Amino acid sequence: MVQSHPRRRSAAAHRAILEAVRDLLLESGYERLSMDGIAARAGVGKQTLYRWWPSKAAVVAEATVAGLVWNGGGEVPETGDVAVDLRAWLTVLVESTAERASLVRALISASADDRGEARRLYLRFTGPHRDAVLARLRRGVDSGQVRPDADLDAVADACVGTLLFQVLTDNENHSASRLDGLLRLLLPGLLVHPRTTGAPEPPGDHH
Amino acid sequence: MVQSHPRRRSAAAHRAILEAVRDLLLESGYERLSMDGIAARAGVGKQTLYRWWPSKAAVVAEATVAGLVWNGGGEVPETGDVAVDLRAWLTVLVESTAERASLVRALISASADDRGEARRLYLRFTGPHRDAVLARLRRGVDSGQVRPDADLDAVADACVGTLLFQVLTDNENHSASRLDGLLRLLLPGLLVHPRTTGAPEPPGDHH
Repeated sequence: MVQSHPRRRSAAAHRAILEAVRDLLLESGYERLSMDGIAARAGVGKQTLYRWWPSKAAVVAEATVAGLVWNGGGEVPETGDVAVDLRAWLTVLVESTAERASLVRALISASADDRGEARRLYLRFTGPHRDAVLARLRRGVDSGQVRPDADLDAVADACVGTLLFQVLTDNENHSASRLDGLLRLLLPGLLVHPRTTGAPEPPGDHH
Repeated sequence: MVQSHPRRRSAAAHRAILEAVRDLLLESGYERLSMDGIAARAGVGKQTLYRWWPSKAAVVAEATVAGLVWNGGGEVPETGDVAVDLRAWLTVLVESTAERASLVRALISASADDRGEARRLYLRFTGPHRDAVLARLRRGVDSGQVRPDADLDAVADACVGTLLFQVLTDNENHSASRLDGLLRLLLPGLLVHPRTTGAPEPPGDHH
């Protein structure tokens, strides 16, 4: 972590390191990433790297916060049908998380190790996605599809938390069916007029 | 992590270290725990400690797997009412987790850092609790309270995952209301005859 405003040369080194992380992750993934490899690619000494970050998880977390690595999933669609939109959002989130499970574990580790890192990762990475889902659910309340007394934060946290638990227990390849099962369980409590299948309603039948 | 069978002297040092971790956690909690403090209390050299474990999170994880630190929550009660039992189990789990959030973050970090550690922690710590909840839910299917097509694994993972997400985002002091909101959302999809409040049914009215 950078403790103070770096001088211009430090700023260039800092940027070079984060870009090296981005490039190496794209080329060969998190498991093969090493502090040695990052330093070599960035053209900085290993000491410089360790002065700023204690571990590869921490430097990857900062590259993520800087928006260089992964934005954490897709947009929340707005078809007019909350169940369809939640399912579509989760499908992309689950797939993109399973594809980079070791990276996600590094971000979890960085969050668990350092409260400041956790806050930065939440504000710049997890939070915006969570806010987008909450906003979609609130529009569902406004349109009369979502029960006004449903705990919308609990919906968002259950989706994200269940997915994190799959990744922590090396179950990410089965997370699609687990999240599908969760959504089927949540919809009857979430929707004013639940449909058991979660299939799209006929066009024009949204209200 | 111990890579091979330790000799007798090593076994004594190993045990002394794990007991020191247990005692220091009880006395002053995870945040104040240090590798120096563990070595001093156990009467071993710091090198010995680092030879076996790379970090305090790793040695705490092993003490947890050995059953010395925390068993991870309470039993799942069996009153005959699934909603009441789930709520009672979650109440104890949420309270005992919030009380030791920094310890839980250490266990998450150890799991995220090392696939072997993750497997050991799951098998000896998380897994038995998850299995107990699943068994309670399956008896609910047998008694006709729980829908046979409900994804019971998703219920267990949503509860545990939501709680882990609260701890990772420093929201553990609000996890009781978040988990309560989740349970209210899940019950209509989980139960054959859901009651919106989740309050106990009158005695003798379980079936």
